[in-house]
Amino acid sequence: MTDYNNPLSSKSFSLPESLDDKNQIDDFVSRNSSRKIVVVQGLGFVGAVMSLVCANTRNGDYAVIGVDLATKESFWKIKSINEGSFPLVAEDPKIEQFFKNTIEKGNFYATYDSYAYSLADVVVVDVNLDVQKFSSENNALEDFDVDLGGFKKAIAVIGENCKKDVTVLVETTVPPGTCINVVQPILIDELRRRNLSDDMIKIGHSYERVMPGPDYIDSIRCYPRVYSGVNTASADAVEEFLKTIIDTSSCELTRLEHTNATEMAKVLENAYRATNIAFVVEWSRFAEEAEVDLYEIINAIRVRKTHSNLMFPNIGVGGYCLTKDPLLASWARKTFFGADSDLEMSIKSVSTNDQMPVYAYERLKEVFGSLHGTHVAFLGVSYRGDVGDTRFTPVESLVNLVKSDGAKVKLHDPYVSYWQELSCEVESDINKVLVPEPSLVIISTAHSVYKKEAFIDKIASVSASKVYDAVGLLTNEQIQKLQSKHRVSVLGRGDIS
Amino acid sequence: MTDYNNPLSSKSFSLPESLDDKNQIDDFVSRNSSRKIVVVQGLGFVGAVMSLVCANTRNGDYAVIGVDLATKESFWKIKSINEGSFPLVAEDPKIEQFFKNTIEKGNFYATYDSYAYSLADVVVVDVNLDVQKFSSENNALEDFDVDLGGFKKAIAVIGENCKKDVTVLVETTVPPGTCINVVQPILIDELRRRNLSDDMIKIGHSYERVMPGPDYIDSIRCYPRVYSGVNTASADAVEEFLKTIIDTSSCELTRLEHTNATEMAKVLENAYRATNIAFVVEWSRFAEEAEVDLYEIINAIRVRKTHSNLMFPNIGVGGYCLTKDPLLASWARKTFFGADSDLEMSIKSVSTNDQMPVYAYERLKEVFGSLHGTHVAFLGVSYRGDVGDTRFTPVESLVNLVKSDGAKVKLHDPYVSYWQELSCEVESDINKVLVPEPSLVIISTAHSVYKKEAFIDKIASVSASKVYDAVGLLTNEQIQKLQSKHRVSVLGRGDIS
Repeated sequence: MTDYNNPLSSKSFSLPESLDDKNQIDDFVSRNSSRKIVVVQGLGFVGAVMSLVCANTRNGDYAVIGVDLATKESFWKIKSINEGSFPLVAEDPKIEQFFKNTIEKGNFYATYDSYAYSLADVVVVDVNLDVQKFSSENNALEDFDVDLGGFKKAIAVIGENCKKDVTVLVETTVPPGTCINVVQPILIDELRRRNLSDDMIKIGHSYERVMPGPDYIDSIRCYPRVYSGVNTASADAVEEFLKTIIDTSSCELTRLEHTNATEMAKVLENAYRATNIAFVVEWSRFAEEAEVDLYEIINAIRVRKTHSNLMFPNIGVGGYCLTKDPLLASWARKTFFGADSDLEMSIKSVSTNDQMPVYAYERLKEVFGSLHGTHVAFLGVSYRGDVGDTRFTPVESLVNLVKSDGAKVKLHDPYVSYWQELSCEVESDINKVLVPEPSLVIISTAHSVYKKEAFIDKIASVSASKVYDAVGLLTNEQIQKLQSKHRVSVLGRGDIS
Repeated sequence: MTDYNNPLSSKSFSLPESLDDKNQIDDFVSRNSSRKIVVVQGLGFVGAVMSLVCANTRNGDYAVIGVDLATKESFWKIKSINEGSFPLVAEDPKIEQFFKNTIEKGNFYATYDSYAYSLADVVVVDVNLDVQKFSSENNALEDFDVDLGGFKKAIAVIGENCKKDVTVLVETTVPPGTCINVVQPILIDELRRRNLSDDMIKIGHSYERVMPGPDYIDSIRCYPRVYSGVNTASADAVEEFLKTIIDTSSCELTRLEHTNATEMAKVLENAYRATNIAFVVEWSRFAEEAEVDLYEIINAIRVRKTHSNLMFPNIGVGGYCLTKDPLLASWARKTFFGADSDLEMSIKSVSTNDQMPVYAYERLKEVFGSLHGTHVAFLGVSYRGDVGDTRFTPVESLVNLVKSDGAKVKLHDPYVSYWQELSCEVESDINKVLVPEPSLVIISTAHSVYKKEAFIDKIASVSASKVYDAVGLLTNEQIQKLQSKHRVSVLGRGDIS
């Protein structure tokens, strides 16, 4: 039996020998006999927190069973939840509070046994649906593909077990057309195979706008949502469920006419964001060339309401959504709707953003020269400030490039202790990263803690001669302070004198 | 002597035989001896209105001389101003009022004689700077070039005549780097050629955000501005002047560090807008394919602050700025700053937008079939609602395509009586366009008057069987009303049932 590491603690774990968890599930359900059962499929960054929200509704909390796979990537989450430790680190204090509530109420259980689906009144689908990217050496996107295999299997497992009148709410970001072309046919097939009537099942789609960080819980509970169903009964059932989950007094719940429409809304939202970022990526290069300060320019333009969401330049885009959703859309357009053209702007945005760490590295070398044999400290490995999430973080590419140049690298992040993708430890003590003194400090994630004066003073106090701000974190005053001892360069700004 | 037509009236005009207007200019200046002289170079959509604003400041109005060329395209504007008729039709009642004020005060004169520059305290440069586009048959952008010849000539004329301590404020949208690389060297050269000292001239850049339409005047006066100078004295002089022009109590005036920065801000603003539009262009095709209503989706997404400026789909982009400014930027990046790559997202946006009328036409044929031998009525030829401006209007392409399909075309626009680019009359009486009844009505510009119920009733009353809304003007109620007799299709919406 192999032991694996829980990435959030020093505990090791081994996989269960049997996939039978029936007795524990039955016990849990009988202890919650007055409650409706919600099964959340997938305990990732959305599903885990969605489970907490479902187990903490204002009236008549649901009994929530989180289901994930008994794999080395996921089993520790199941174990962790049942042992009283939530499998996510985040700034939001509500996460801890909500999880504590569920322990007190005993209404949250996690399992790997698909028997859970047979008891569900509502199944919320929060599994991943990935895109396979094929990129050039400099990260330009050359081709991509969408493999629905895992997603189809997850839906089939529901169909193999569920009640005939269950409500299946897909929250996964899917290629537009998936509920109609994939989810509905699979569920109907499975029900028929089990000789069950197929006209009572309810299938709908709605997407969260979850934002890991200080408002993690409220980004699910208190954020406007759209929803839809494959038919009116489905849309009604989804509406009834979401009304118990979402704080409809503070945010709107909007029904769209078709699951194609809500599915499209989600990927359009993210493609729009990715496009806005890619737009600025190119201009940040231009600003460096023209020796001007793009932050100053953007601040001046943002006073226009129509331009208020113009993004600031950055090291690139990370996370699970913006790096792939535009591609899902373009793929769907061709696969489900027979289009003969791509969403070119959207695809281009992904490719441009993917290349940003390469640009950032080129600029770094242009300004500071070769890094061979030097010590480089990275402040931040998360893809976004104030979260511990390294999925597709652009820092990964930059770290690899700096390493390949022959530099020794130290990593700091207050929210990440183990970097799964690079299989390495990350320091949480800044002193350990700054001793022995690095010759280059790269600010690579805009964590709030890095913005504090005491922190800047600490960087200023080391004798490093170079600071590269790859996320536009430093204020002009902070730059001046650092410049007394350091050569400072900021991504998207001409040479600072 | 050839006679030309004034496009705003039935009057014809001939060009002046001599370019000497010295006596009239001297008379005008002596009548305004207590006033400072502002010369506005270029009497187009910006310069004409900027002249009015300069002649109507709160304290100590300037004496304003508008200068343009004695050509068939421009001379009628000069003549028109001096004969008491403003050479622009716009919704904004302030235009008429401001022009009337200048007649009463006698502080606005127009001329073609560059002698005017010799008297100027301030010269405001509002001449055009065009991009030459080379496009494929379906309007995709294949190549482009920027010819600075005309612009350089305009700057040289100032330098050949101006006082050595004049303030030259460039408002023209220029490739970033132009003030430093083009304007300053030319002016210094010309001053030296005249044996004048070259260290007292002030050269700055600031751009208007003029928006033809109901707030034309206030879009210059009451809109935040950035400005810059080639040195501190220049920036100070520009600031002093703009403070008398802009209503600084209602909007901010921000100094940027470098003329490169303000020049970049302008084209970045417009490239951003063009990119946002191009983004939605592609999704409007997708929405049509997936049979969903993109307007419904966008409305749902716009509740997010970060997405509140998501654009609605449209027939395409027109006007003088968004169709070329992204290209100016990319050109400058290579020409002035030696970059070896393009602003690809920005260039792509122009190409995508340019193709939109072709898409709209393809959709039209897909839904309604061939137009051969039919009568088609276009409602609106302007590129934008509530203005009379046909420069680069996307309606032009659509009209040409519909004509090439063998349809007879009638055009309506309340703000355009003569379509210069197509050399044809445009009806302002809707009845003349709807009799004899067209078999297809295309709503091609979102003029407010078209949204009124009485207008919709008028369209509903003709027996035409088809209505194509290419600008998303119709409300759901109006669509229902029209559907009682017509087949209705809306750009960016699946089939409407």
